[in-house]
Parts: sequence; C-alpha cells; structure tokens
Amino acid sequence: MDAWGERLAGVRGVLLDISGVLYDGGEGGGTPIAGSVEAVARLKQSRLKVRFCTNESQKSRGKLVGLLRRLGFDISEGEVTAPAPAACLILKERGLRPHLLVHDGVRSEFEQVDTSNPNCVVIADAGDGFSYQNMNKAFQVLVQLEKPVLISLGKGRYYKETSGLMLDVGAYMKALEYACGIEAEVVGKPSPEFFKSALQEMGLEAHQAQ
Amino acid sequence: MDAWGERLAGVRGVLLDISGVLYDGGEGGGTPIAGSVEAVARLKQSRLKVRFCTNESQKSRGKLVGLLRRLGFDISEGEVTAPAPAACLILKERGLRPHLLVHDGVRSEFEQVDTSNPNCVVIADAGDGFSYQNMNKAFQVLVQLEKPVLISLGKGRYYKETSGLMLDVGAYMKALEYACGIEAEVVGKPSPEFFKSALQEMGLEAHQAQ
Repeated sequence: MDAWGERLAGVRGVLLDISGVLYDGGEGGGTPIAGSVEAVARLKQSRLKVRFCTNESQKSRGKLVGLLRRLGFDISEGEVTAPAPAACLILKERGLRPHLLVHDGVRSEFEQVDTSNPNCVVIADAGDGFSYQNMNKAFQVLVQLEKPVLISLGKGRYYKETSGLMLDVGAYMKALEYACGIEAEVVGKPSPEFFKSALQEMGLEAHQAQ
Repeated sequence: MDAWGERLAGVRGVLLDISGVLYDGGEGGGTPIAGSVEAVARLKQSRLKVRFCTNESQKSRGKLVGLLRRLGFDISEGEVTAPAPAACLILKERGLRPHLLVHDGVRSEFEQVDTSNPNCVVIADAGDGFSYQNMNKAFQVLVQLEKPVLISLGKGRYYKETSGLMLDVGAYMKALEYACGIEAEVVGKPSPEFFKSALQEMGLEAHQAQ
C-alpha cells in the first residue's frame, strides 16, 4: 500500500475507464480483466471517491451496469458518466433534433429526445448498424442541412473484444466528416467538457482526481 | 461550332468522365444525361481522339461498357481507363496480394491476382458491401501488417444516383486511414499517374488534351 499512498498523495477521487480497463466485451457480454473486480472493491473501501467514465455507446448505462454487476463489479448506474446522456443535454440546450445512427442497445437513452424532422446527426458505436444503407441515410440528412451538425459519441479508432480488434465510432465519424466536408463535435473522451462533467458529479477539481 | 473551335485550339484529344457526366446510375442501370449520347457521337465524328476516364469501381469495364452501349453510347472496352486494371498492374509490380473490399461487379477484374495470405487491402466503391463486418475484416488485415498498405480506387466523397447522393469509396478510405493511422494510395482520379496512363493510351501529351 506504500506505493499507492505515494502516487495518490493529494488525490481525493479516481475516474475509472470501463471498456478495455475493467472488462473486455465479447461473446456472452465479455470477461473481467484480471484483478479489476478486486481493484474496484479496494478503491471503494478506501477514502477515495470513485466514478466510472466511459465512452461506451453501444449500451445504455442501465444495460452496461447490469452487465458489470453480473461480472462481479460493485457499480451502480448513478456512478457512471457516459456520452449518450451528455449528448442528450447538448441536444436539449441547442434545440437539436437528431437523426440517430446508434446501436439499438443505447436507443433508450434518447427516448425523451425529439427526432422528428432532424437538424443534426448523432453517431455512436453502432456495430453492425454501420451498414452502407444506414451510413448513407446519415450522410443524406447531413448533406441537405445548411449547416450540417454531426455529434459523435467518442472518436475511438478501435476497441478490443475477446474475438479481436473492432472498428470504433471514430472511423465512421471520419467517413461522414470527409463526405460532408465538416468537423464533428465529439461528446465523450477526450473532450475536456466530458471529464469536467464527471469531476463535477464527484464534487472534485481536476488536480484532486487521478 | 465556332465556340467549340476556339476552345479546342491546339487540342488533339478529349478525356471524358463517365458517371455523372455521361449518365447517372440508378435503378435499372441508370439514365443518360441529356445531350451526352449526341455529344459523344459528335466528338467521335470530329478529328479529336476520344478516351473515357472513369473512377467507376463497382463494375468491370466490360459491364460498364455493356450498360453504356445499351443506353445508346458509342463506346468500346478498349477506350476506357478505369482504376481496377490500373491497380492490378501496381499489385503485380510490387508483389502485393490484396484483401479485396470491392463490389462483386468488379471482382472479375482481379481474377488473375493472388489474394492468398494478403499483405495489403484494396478498397473500391463496394456499395452495400461496405457492411461493418466487411470493413472490420479489412481493418483487421491492415492492422496486423507491419507496414499497412491500403490502395483505394478513387477517393470520391459521394456520387449522384437517380435516387439521390450516395457515399463513395473516399469516405470508407478515410475510415480505414483513421483507424490504422495510415494514408491510402489512391489509384484513379485525381492521381496524376492515372491521367498520364490515359494520355499514354491516347498517344498524347497533357497540353494536347482537354
């Protein structure tokens, strides 16, 4: 514990990633990464605040937390900062009505959002939903807008599943950016606003978190 | 004819695009663009050399020419410069064995190419073939190579069909470039080498062609 103590001097809270850090997704939901269940338990027993900050955009927070609990993690929905709820706040603030190119598993996060007559596109890690037809539909919505707005939940290049590396939303974000000659707004890591909102939820300043 | 005469002073040959210039693709093959059948006929009756230079990568030259002839154009396979045959020359010269992410309609152009144990990826306008699964397979081939080589048949953002605008190969090229942190080699327009090969086939210098 001495090494931990030194590294964590002045630190009052810890932000933990989920995918690829606590577990690798895959068949049957995925598998915990060795030692991670125990590490989360130890952190929660310590004096540190703990929050989970993920770019997971295939699943709603409810489904993600359900999966993690089945894998043995001590985690609740209120402890998770995820891009879909953050995007919903932005959409509401700016009066944006999205065309959603997202995985069915995360669609419930957008239930309260008006998606009629779309004036922007929200793209998330849609997995097999990234068909040509769905990508083309998103492109056609964007290209007919006077000022196309593309909001991307994260900009990851790829992620690891138990079966291998998988293309992430960032690749498809780049495809739409290029086709429309625009730059996407990224909601999620590495956006500073996203980290700030997680810190606010912990009641900490940046220098107090690890 | 006076206006034509002035514009074409010193010009000995004409390179014509096909998709979006001679015809728009779509249901049932597509439709000629108004006046284009007659324009090709007039050019061919003139003193000018005529060659067709296309980035069409969904169809083999044979199929493309068959379609254009049915639409009324006077065109033969030997008059067409297209990216797939140009890519085959490059693959042969450099000992590259491609994983092909291409439309079934153009696969016959690669019949003579060794595709075993791939050491590069060739991407073309695959249309509905741009599924997540197919894109991920191409990504997985690239990411395991020490020096990933991605050859893209054109880099168009989108093209027009009678039913609307459609995402072109360039968007998917950008997706793989971003995911792998590489830059694709483009075979087709606007690559100068591609135009040069078309000019060579006409026996003309750049300043002699329009």
